[in-house]
Amino acid sequence: MGWNERLDELSTMRTEAAQGGGPARITAQHDRGKQTARERIAKLVDPGSFQELDAFAQHRCHDFGMEQSRTLGDGVVAGSGLVDGRPIHLYAQDFTVLGGSLGETVAAKICKVMDLALRHGTPLVALNDSGGARIQEGVLALAGYADIFYRNTRASGVIPQLSVILGPCAGGAVYSPGLTDFILMAEGTSHMFITGPEVIKTVTGEEVSFEELGGAAAHASKSGVAHLTGADEDQTLELVRSLLAYLPANNLEDPPPRPTGDPADRRLDGLPELVPADGNLGYDVRELVRRVVDQGEFLEIHEQYARNIVVGFARHDGHPVGVVANQPAVLAGGLDCYATE
Amino acid sequence: MGWNERLDELSTMRTEAAQGGGPARITAQHDRGKQTARERIAKLVDPGSFQELDAFAQHRCHDFGMEQSRTLGDGVVAGSGLVDGRPIHLYAQDFTVLGGSLGETVAAKICKVMDLALRHGTPLVALNDSGGARIQEGVLALAGYADIFYRNTRASGVIPQLSVILGPCAGGAVYSPGLTDFILMAEGTSHMFITGPEVIKTVTGEEVSFEELGGAAAHASKSGVAHLTGADEDQTLELVRSLLAYLPANNLEDPPPRPTGDPADRRLDGLPELVPADGNLGYDVRELVRRVVDQGEFLEIHEQYARNIVVGFARHDGHPVGVVANQPAVLAGGLDCYATE
Amino acid sequence: MGWNERLDELSTMRTEAAQGGGPARITAQHDRGKQTARERIAKLVDPGSFQELDAFAQHRCHDFGMEQSRTLGDGVVAGSGLVDGRPIHLYAQDFTVLGGSLGETVAAKICKVMDLALRHGTPLVALNDSGGARIQEGVLALAGYADIFYRNTRASGVIPQLSVILGPCAGGAVYSPGLTDFILMAEGTSHMFITGPEVIKTVTGEEVSFEELGGAAAHASKSGVAHLTGADEDQTLELVRSLLAYLPANNLEDPPPRPTGDPADRRLDGLPELVPADGNLGYDVRELVRRVVDQGEFLEIHEQYARNIVVGFARHDGHPVGVVANQPAVLAGGLDCYATE
Amino acid sequence: MGWNERLDELSTMRTEAAQGGGPARITAQHDRGKQTARERIAKLVDPGSFQELDAFAQHRCHDFGMEQSRTLGDGVVAGSGLVDGRPIHLYAQDFTVLGGSLGETVAAKICKVMDLALRHGTPLVALNDSGGARIQEGVLALAGYADIFYRNTRASGVIPQLSVILGPCAGGAVYSPGLTDFILMAEGTSHMFITGPEVIKTVTGEEVSFEELGGAAAHASKSGVAHLTGADEDQTLELVRSLLAYLPANNLEDPPPRPTGDPADRRLDGLPELVPADGNLGYDVRELVRRVVDQGEFLEIHEQYARNIVVGFARHDGHPVGVVANQPAVLAGGLDCYATE
Amino acid sequence: MGWNERLDELSTMRTEAAQGGGPARITAQHDRGKQTARERIAKLVDPGSFQELDAFAQHRCHDFGMEQSRTLGDGVVAGSGLVDGRPIHLYAQDFTVLGGSLGETVAAKICKVMDLALRHGTPLVALNDSGGARIQEGVLALAGYADIFYRNTRASGVIPQLSVILGPCAGGAVYSPGLTDFILMAEGTSHMFITGPEVIKTVTGEEVSFEELGGAAAHASKSGVAHLTGADEDQTLELVRSLLAYLPANNLEDPPPRPTGDPADRRLDGLPELVPADGNLGYDVRELVRRVVDQGEFLEIHEQYARNIVVGFARHDGHPVGVVANQPAVLAGGLDCYATE
Amino acid sequence: MGWNERLDELSTMRTEAAQGGGPARITAQHDRGKQTARERIAKLVDPGSFQELDAFAQHRCHDFGMEQSRTLGDGVVAGSGLVDGRPIHLYAQDFTVLGGSLGETVAAKICKVMDLALRHGTPLVALNDSGGARIQEGVLALAGYADIFYRNTRASGVIPQLSVILGPCAGGAVYSPGLTDFILMAEGTSHMFITGPEVIKTVTGEEVSFEELGGAAAHASKSGVAHLTGADEDQTLELVRSLLAYLPANNLEDPPPRPTGDPADRRLDGLPELVPADGNLGYDVRELVRRVVDQGEFLEIHEQYARNIVVGFARHDGHPVGVVANQPAVLAGGLDCYATE
Repeated sequence: MGWNERLDELSTMRTEAAQGGGPARITAQHDRGKQTARERIAKLVDPGSFQELDAFAQHRCHDFGMEQSRTLGDGVVAGSGLVDGRPIHLYAQDFTVLGGSLGETVAAKICKVMDLALRHGTPLVALNDSGGARIQEGVLALAGYADIFYRNTRASGVIPQLSVILGPCAGGAVYSPGLTDFILMAEGTSHMFITGPEVIKTVTGEEVSFEELGGAAAHASKSGVAHLTGADEDQTLELVRSLLAYLPANNLEDPPPRPTGDPADRRLDGLPELVPADGNLGYDVRELVRRVVDQGEFLEIHEQYARNIVVGFARHDGHPVGVVANQPAVLAGGLDCYATE
Repeated sequence: MGWNERLDELSTMRTEAAQGGGPARITAQHDRGKQTARERIAKLVDPGSFQELDAFAQHRCHDFGMEQSRTLGDGVVAGSGLVDGRPIHLYAQDFTVLGGSLGETVAAKICKVMDLALRHGTPLVALNDSGGARIQEGVLALAGYADIFYRNTRASGVIPQLSVILGPCAGGAVYSPGLTDFILMAEGTSHMFITGPEVIKTVTGEEVSFEELGGAAAHASKSGVAHLTGADEDQTLELVRSLLAYLPANNLEDPPPRPTGDPADRRLDGLPELVPADGNLGYDVRELVRRVVDQGEFLEIHEQYARNIVVGFARHDGHPVGVVANQPAVLAGGLDCYATE
Repeated sequence: MGWNERLDELSTMRTEAAQGGGPARITAQHDRGKQTARERIAKLVDPGSFQELDAFAQHRCHDFGMEQSRTLGDGVVAGSGLVDGRPIHLYAQDFTVLGGSLGETVAAKICKVMDLALRHGTPLVALNDSGGARIQEGVLALAGYADIFYRNTRASGVIPQLSVILGPCAGGAVYSPGLTDFILMAEGTSHMFITGPEVIKTVTGEEVSFEELGGAAAHASKSGVAHLTGADEDQTLELVRSLLAYLPANNLEDPPPRPTGDPADRRLDGLPELVPADGNLGYDVRELVRRVVDQGEFLEIHEQYARNIVVGFARHDGHPVGVVANQPAVLAGGLDCYATE
Repeated sequence: MGWNERLDELSTMRTEAAQGGGPARITAQHDRGKQTARERIAKLVDPGSFQELDAFAQHRCHDFGMEQSRTLGDGVVAGSGLVDGRPIHLYAQDFTVLGGSLGETVAAKICKVMDLALRHGTPLVALNDSGGARIQEGVLALAGYADIFYRNTRASGVIPQLSVILGPCAGGAVYSPGLTDFILMAEGTSHMFITGPEVIKTVTGEEVSFEELGGAAAHASKSGVAHLTGADEDQTLELVRSLLAYLPANNLEDPPPRPTGDPADRRLDGLPELVPADGNLGYDVRELVRRVVDQGEFLEIHEQYARNIVVGFARHDGHPVGVVANQPAVLAGGLDCYATE
Repeated sequence: MGWNERLDELSTMRTEAAQGGGPARITAQHDRGKQTARERIAKLVDPGSFQELDAFAQHRCHDFGMEQSRTLGDGVVAGSGLVDGRPIHLYAQDFTVLGGSLGETVAAKICKVMDLALRHGTPLVALNDSGGARIQEGVLALAGYADIFYRNTRASGVIPQLSVILGPCAGGAVYSPGLTDFILMAEGTSHMFITGPEVIKTVTGEEVSFEELGGAAAHASKSGVAHLTGADEDQTLELVRSLLAYLPANNLEDPPPRPTGDPADRRLDGLPELVPADGNLGYDVRELVRRVVDQGEFLEIHEQYARNIVVGFARHDGHPVGVVANQPAVLAGGLDCYATE
Repeated sequence: MGWNERLDELSTMRTEAAQGGGPARITAQHDRGKQTARERIAKLVDPGSFQELDAFAQHRCHDFGMEQSRTLGDGVVAGSGLVDGRPIHLYAQDFTVLGGSLGETVAAKICKVMDLALRHGTPLVALNDSGGARIQEGVLALAGYADIFYRNTRASGVIPQLSVILGPCAGGAVYSPGLTDFILMAEGTSHMFITGPEVIKTVTGEEVSFEELGGAAAHASKSGVAHLTGADEDQTLELVRSLLAYLPANNLEDPPPRPTGDPADRRLDGLPELVPADGNLGYDVRELVRRVVDQGEFLEIHEQYARNIVVGFARHDGHPVGVVANQPAVLAGGLDCYATE
C-alpha cells in the first residue's frame, strides 16, 4: 500500500469515528434535546482547538456477542482543547455508542486524559452522558470506574475538576462527579442518582419522578449537589467557560487576571442607602457584592441552595476573588448546617 | 444610631486620637526640640502613605487609678507606610501619653506590626521615645517587653530592623534596640542607657551627665552602639530613608538596584597619586572608596567608632554593595578588638 | 620601588610569560602545523574576552636540575572567556614549555579553572597538547592527574566539559578527556592513545602508525572516541564554538534559544517523496532531519561512527534540540552494539 | 518574710484553690450527680500523677462588679498526668466557679495546656462542664474561644484530642468538641447543643426536653455526635482510659502494643457456622470481629449510630488495629449516608 | 452452593493449577533435564514459605483459537518466599504452558510481583524459561515486555534483581535480564541470545551451535553476560541463595551480618611466602583473598571472564564485603577493556 | 630487596620518627618542664589506642638551606585515639622539630586529621606547642594557617574542638585556638598572645612579663580566653579527658549518659538553710549546684572569670547537663558585659 492509500484509509476511519453510534442514534439523541459528544466539545472549547486522542480505540469484549458491536473510538471522545486560550483536558461520553456505557476501553481513554491533565497541570472537564457500567464487560467495567476514582482523588487539590451532567448519571457513575470540585447540570435533560425511581418504588413503595429524584433543579436547591445549572446544554457549557475563567490551571499557579476597567480604588457611593443602619432590617447582600466587585460581575455558586449564605466568584482589580457573604435577606443570614457544608 | 451618627462619632474619635496626650503635652514636647509621633512618621514615610492600626486601642489597667487615665491609641502609633515607594512597617512611641511608657496595650500594638512586618517581609522601623516600662501595669508591662524581644530575635536575619532613638531610652527599653540591626540617634535630644546618672552617683559616687553617659555622640564614638547619628530629628529620619535604600526588604530579596549613570567599567584615573607607593605612608581610604563607587556616594556606618576600619554602603553599577576597608590613616589601619566587633 | 617601577616590572613579566617556552619552541610548534596555546585561545573565544589566571605561576621541583628550568605560567594557559557572549572557562596546554608536560603547578592551575567553572556554572573547554606526566615531578604529577580526574567526575552532569585534542595525548593524559562529554580532534596533528606504537611493537610485534593507532580519523570512525573532527586546528576550534551554541551553561539552565526565522508550524512538503512508502526501501534520514529542523542546520555527532544511527544537534522554533534517528540507508537502520554505546 | 512563712502562705493558697467555688457549690454539684473538676481528674489519671499548672491564676475583669468575685485558679483546672503510664495533657472546667464560664484567664490556661500537648506530642483530654462564655468579659471571652478553636485545628491530625462532656455544653462551647477527634458523654448529666429548648420553643413553638435535644442518648444514636457514652461519670472516664490505650501519642509514633497472650497465627474454628453460606442470610458481624481479634476485646465506636456499619478498636498480635465492617444484621449491611459520614 | 462445595471447588482448581500445562508436558520438561516452575521454586525458597499470587489468572486472547487453550495461572508462577528467612519476591516462567510464552496476563502477574518487591523493598528473583513473546497476543505481548522493562529500570539501584536462565531466553526476552543486576545460568539447559543460529546461518552463512552462541559457558567466559553458572539447575538455584546472602534487601538497608567465628584482628601468617617480594613474579591473588576473608569463603563473580581481575563477595568480621583485586597470575594483572567493563 | 629487608627498613624509620627532633632537643624540652608530643598523647588517650598518620612525612622547602634539615614526621604528630573508649582525632605540635614551627607539610598533616574528625564526627583535640609560622616556607606556611582556620570554621558547631596550650602560642598561631570551642592552658609553661612583650615595649614603652601578658592565670581571670587551666601538663591533659566526658561526639549525637548512683528524684534537704530567705543576703551558688547535681560533681568553666556568673558541666540522672547560675556571692549576681560574653 502506498502513502496515498494509507492516507485514504485513515481519512475513512476518521469519518466513521466521527459518526459515533451512527446516524440513527444521533437523531435519537437530538430528539431528546441533547447533542452529541463532539457537538458539545465544539461548543465548550475555542474553535479549532480540540485535539482528539485514541480516536480509533475499540473494546475487547468477546462475551454476549459484544465482538459484533465494536465502534471506532468506543463510547467516549477524549482529548485536549483551549478555553479562552488556556489549555484544558476533557472527555465527553458518547451516548450514541452503547448508551455511553463505561467499559474497559472507555475507562482507559478517560484515564489517559486524566493523567495528561495532572501531568500538564490543566483543568479537567468531564461531560457525562452515560447509562453506567457496561455490564457485558463485568468486573473490567467496574475496575475501570476504580481507575477513574483513584485519579479523581489524586488530582483533587492539584487541578480543578469539573463534571458536567448532560444526560443520565446513575449508579457507579455518580461517584466520579462526587469526587470532583464542581458539578454543573443542564435543566430538563440531566439526572443524577445512585438508585432510580423503579428501585425506590420496589423497596419503599414511594413514587418519585426522575426529575424530582435527580434533576438539575432538585440538585441545585435541595441536595446542593449541583453547583451551577444551565437552562439547556448550551447555557450549561457556557457556564463551564465562565467558571474556568476564575480558576487557576493548577495549585502552583494563580488564576489569570483580566483588566476590567474598574479602578481598584474607586469610591463606592450609596452603600449607606443599601445597607440599613438598623441591624434588624435585612437586605440583599448580593447587591452589595455586585457593587464592590469589578463591573458588577458575580458568578454565584449554589444560588438556590443554602440561600442564607452567598458564595461565588468575581474580580477585584482584575484578579479573580472568591466571595463568601452572609445573606441578611434569608433567615437573617444565620448559619445552619446547610450553609456550612 | 444611623450611619451618619456613626460616621460622626468615628470622625470625633479620630480627631481625639490624633491629639495623643493632648495640646499641653504636645507643646512641652515641641519645647524640648522634639516632635510628636505623628509628626515624625509624616517625615519618615512618603506623603499620604501611612496606614495606622489600632488607633483607638486603650489600656486595661485598673490599679493606681489608671482607669481614669486612658487615651485613645495609648502610648504608641503603629502601622505601615512607604519609603521611596517600598513598604515598611513602623511604630513610633508617643511621649505625650504617659511619657511613652510601655504597657500591655502598647506592647500588643507593637507586636502586631512586628508580626505583620515579618509576615509581609518588610523592614521594621521603631521610633523610640519612651520613659520605659509603665510601672502601674507591673509584670504585664515587663511581659510586653518580653514579647517584643522575642519578635526581635525571630525577625533577626529575616527582615531589617532599625531602631531610631529620639528621646529617652533607658532600663528595659534598651534591649529591643540592642537586638535590632541598626541604631540611629538624634544628637542632643536622645539618650540611651540601662542605668541612669542618679543610680551611678548613688552606687559609685561618680558624676556623669546624661549626654556623656548615653548621648548620641557618646554612643557614636565610644560605645559603638549608634550606627548613625543625625544633627537633629529631621536629619536622623532622613538617614533612615537613606539607609533603607541600601537594604533588601527581607532575606529572600535583593536590595533594589538604582541606575546611577556611572558606567560599571569606567576607568579610574589618579589612583597612583592617591595611594602612596611607599606602604609606610598613610592615606584616607574613604577617598579611595568614593572614587570607586557610583557617583561618589558612600553612607558610612560607625563613622566615629573604630576609625581604623571603614564600613558602609554604596552602589556599584547601580547595585547596593557593602564596603569594608582598612583605614591606613588611623592606627596604620591595624585591626583591634573594636574594629572586629 | 615606586608605582611606575612596579608597573614596569609587571609589564616585563607579562611579556615574558606570553612567550611561553620561547621563540625557538614556538617556531617548532608552528612548523608542526600547530599553534601556541595563546593563539588557540584567541581563536576560540570572542575577541578581547580572555581573562588569564596565574600567569606567573612556576613549578617548585628541585630534582633533576629542574630548578634551572622554570617558565612563567608553566605549561598551561588558563582562564575564562566568552563564546558568542556566553562565559566559559578553559585551559590550553602549552607544548612549548617542557612539552606541555603536566606537573604539580600545571595541575593546580587547571584545577582552579575547573573549580571556577563548576562554581559559576559555565562550560569547561580543555585544549590538550601535552607529552603527558612530567616525570621529574614523580608522584606529584600523578597526583595532579588525580585531582583533575576527581573534578571531571564531580563536574559530570553539572556543566558541559569539552576536550579538544590538538597534539599528543597519551598515557595518563587520556583519562581526563575520557571523562568529559565531548572529544574533538584536529586531523593530522592530534593523536590519542594509552600505549604508543613502540610499546605495541615491542609487546606484540605489530607495526602500527601513530595515525592508525590514535589519529582523528581512527577515533572518529573506528573507536568512536572522537565526537567531532576538524580538518585543521582552526576548523576544530570553530566546531567547539558551534557545539557550545547548542549546550546549556549548566544543568540548571536551558540552552539559549536563537530565532531562526523558520516558523514552528510551517508545512513540510515533499516528505512522501523522500520517505518511500515501501518499508523495504532505504533512504538517507539525514535529509529528513534537515528538512524538519530550523534552516536545515544540523550538527551531526559521530558522523563516521555507527552510521546506522544518526545523532546530533539542531534547532526547532529556535530552541536547541537533540536528534536521534535510525538511518535506513545503513544496515537498514538496524541497531547494533556500536549504535547503542 | 522567712521561708517558713512563705511556705505557709503557699500552702494556704493551695488549700483555697482546691476548694474551687467553695463548699456550697461543691455540694450542689454533687447533688446533681456530678463530680468536681479535681475529683474527675483524680479518676482519669494514674494516682498521684497529676501536675497542675496556673493553680492561682485569676481573672482580670473589672466590669459588672466582677472584681469582687475572683477565685484562685478561676473556672478551670489544667495540667498533665499519666494514663497507664503514658503522659497526657488535660483540662477540666470547674462548674463551681461562676458556672464554669469561659473568660480570658480560663481560656489562657486552656491554651497553655493545648500548646504543651502539641509541643510534647501527647493526647489532649478536655473535661467539659461549663455554662458557656462569661458574658461579663464580653469580647475577651469570645476571643478566648477563638484561641481554643485555632489550637484545635492546629492540633488536628497531630495529637489525639478527646472531649468529655460532663455537664452543659452549649452555644459557643460546642465548637471546640466539634473540632476534636472523639466526643464522650455521660448519660443523664451531660447535654450538648447550640440553641437550647427555650429558644427553640420561642422560635418554632416546638417543645423538646434537654435530654431529647442534646442528651447522651440522643447524640449517640441520632446525631452521631457522641462516639462513646458512659452510664455515669465514672464509666465515662474509664472509657477515656480504654480509648487512649488504642491511640498513638501523636502522628509520629505508633500506638503502644500490649501482649495479649493470643497467638497471631491461631486457627479460628467455627467460622462457617457463624457466617451463613447463603449470602442472603444476615448475621452479627460483631461476633465475627470478636473471634478474630485478641481476647475478644473490641471497643466499638458509634455503637448505636449507623448500625449498618461497625467500627471500633481492637488488637491483633497485641498491636492496636482499627476495625471497619459491614453489618449484615442491619439493613443487610448496605451503606447509607449515615454510615459513610 | 454451601461453604463445603465452595471449598471443594477451590481445592479442585488448586490441583489443576498446580499441573501447569499438564502431565505430558511436565514429562517432556523432565526429559530435557529441566524442572517445572514449581519444582524450581520449591528448591529456591525456604520450605513452606512460598505464597503464590494470581494462581487462577487466565489469558484473554480470542484470536487464532486461543480461547480454546486457557490454563489456570497461565505461563508463569509468581509470589513471594523466604531465603534464609529473608523475604524475596519471585516469578518462574512455566515452560509447560504454551512454551512459557509471555502474553498480557503473564506480564500482568510478573509486574505485580515486581511492584510488590519494590514497595516492600525485597530482592526480586526471576526464573526464566520461555519461548519469548506469545505472538498470538500480538502487540499486547510486546506491551507486556515494555511494562516489565520499565519496572526493571525503576527498581534498578533500589532492590537487587537477579535473573536465572533455566531454558531458552531469546529475542525480546533477553532485555529484562540485561537490565537486572545479576544473571545466573545453568550449564547445558539454558541459552540466551537475541537472534538464533538459524537466522545467523541465513544472514551470514555461518553455522554456530546453540551452546556456542548462547550457552552458559559462552556467556560465562566470552561475553561476560553470565555472572555465575551452575553445573545443573539445582546448583544454579543454590548459587542464587548464596548470592542473596551477600546482598542487602534494598538500598536503605545493610546486608545482613553473620558471625563466622573468625576474629577480625587475627594475625595472618605466611603472606610473605604467598606474595613474592620480586614484583615481576606472579601469584594467584585468589589465594590471598581467601586467607584474608572470613573462613576462606569467597563467592567469585565472573570467574571465567576477564580473568586478569578478580571480583566477588566475601565476609569480614561477619559483614559482607565486595572484593576487587588485580590478578597477577593473568596478563600480569594488567587491566584491559574487559576488566573494566 | 626482599620482604625482610623492607620490614627492617620500616622499623628503622619508625624508631627515627619516634625521636622527633632528637635526644638533645627532647632533653631541653624536659628541662623546661614540658613533655614531648608523643608523651602528651600517651597521657591523653587510652593506653595503646593511638593510631598515627603520616609518620614519615617531610617538608619540601629548598630555601635557606632547609633541605638539610628534614625530620621524619616534621613538626607535628597526628592521628586518632580513644578517650574513655570514645574515638577522638588529635594532633600535637612537636617543639623539638624546628621549634614546632608550622610549614606546608605540618599544615597538611593537621588538615588531614581535621577532615577525618569532621567526616567521622569525633571531637578534635589540638595540643599546641609551636613557635609559629615557619618563616623559611614563607607564604606556604601562612596558607597552611588559612587551611586550618577554614576547617576550624567548617567544623564549628559540628564537632567539639578543644585547644590545649602547652607552650608558646603566638602571632598567627592564636587564631586557630580562638576559633575552637574550648581553650585549656597549663600554668607556668604556656603563653598565648598575638604580639609579644618585646614589640609592646618597642611600641608603647610598657614593660610586661610573658606570664602577665599571656600566661594561663592571666587568660583564666582577666581575658577569659582560657576556659580551664591545669597546674601542670598532666593535670591539664586530665582536664581534657574530664571535659570530653560531658560533650557529644558531634551535633547529631547526645553526650554519653553515665549512671552515677544518685536517684533522679532524691529529696534535697537543707536548701532553706543554704539559700537565705532574705534576698539581700548573698550565698555561694556553687554549693547549691553541687547539691543538686549527681554526686556533687561539677566541672566549672571560667572559674576565675566573670565570677558573678557560674557556668559549667555536671550530670543529672546520669545525663550531662550544662549549668548556668547567677552567683549572689559576687556583685550580688548582677550581670555585666563580662558575664554575658
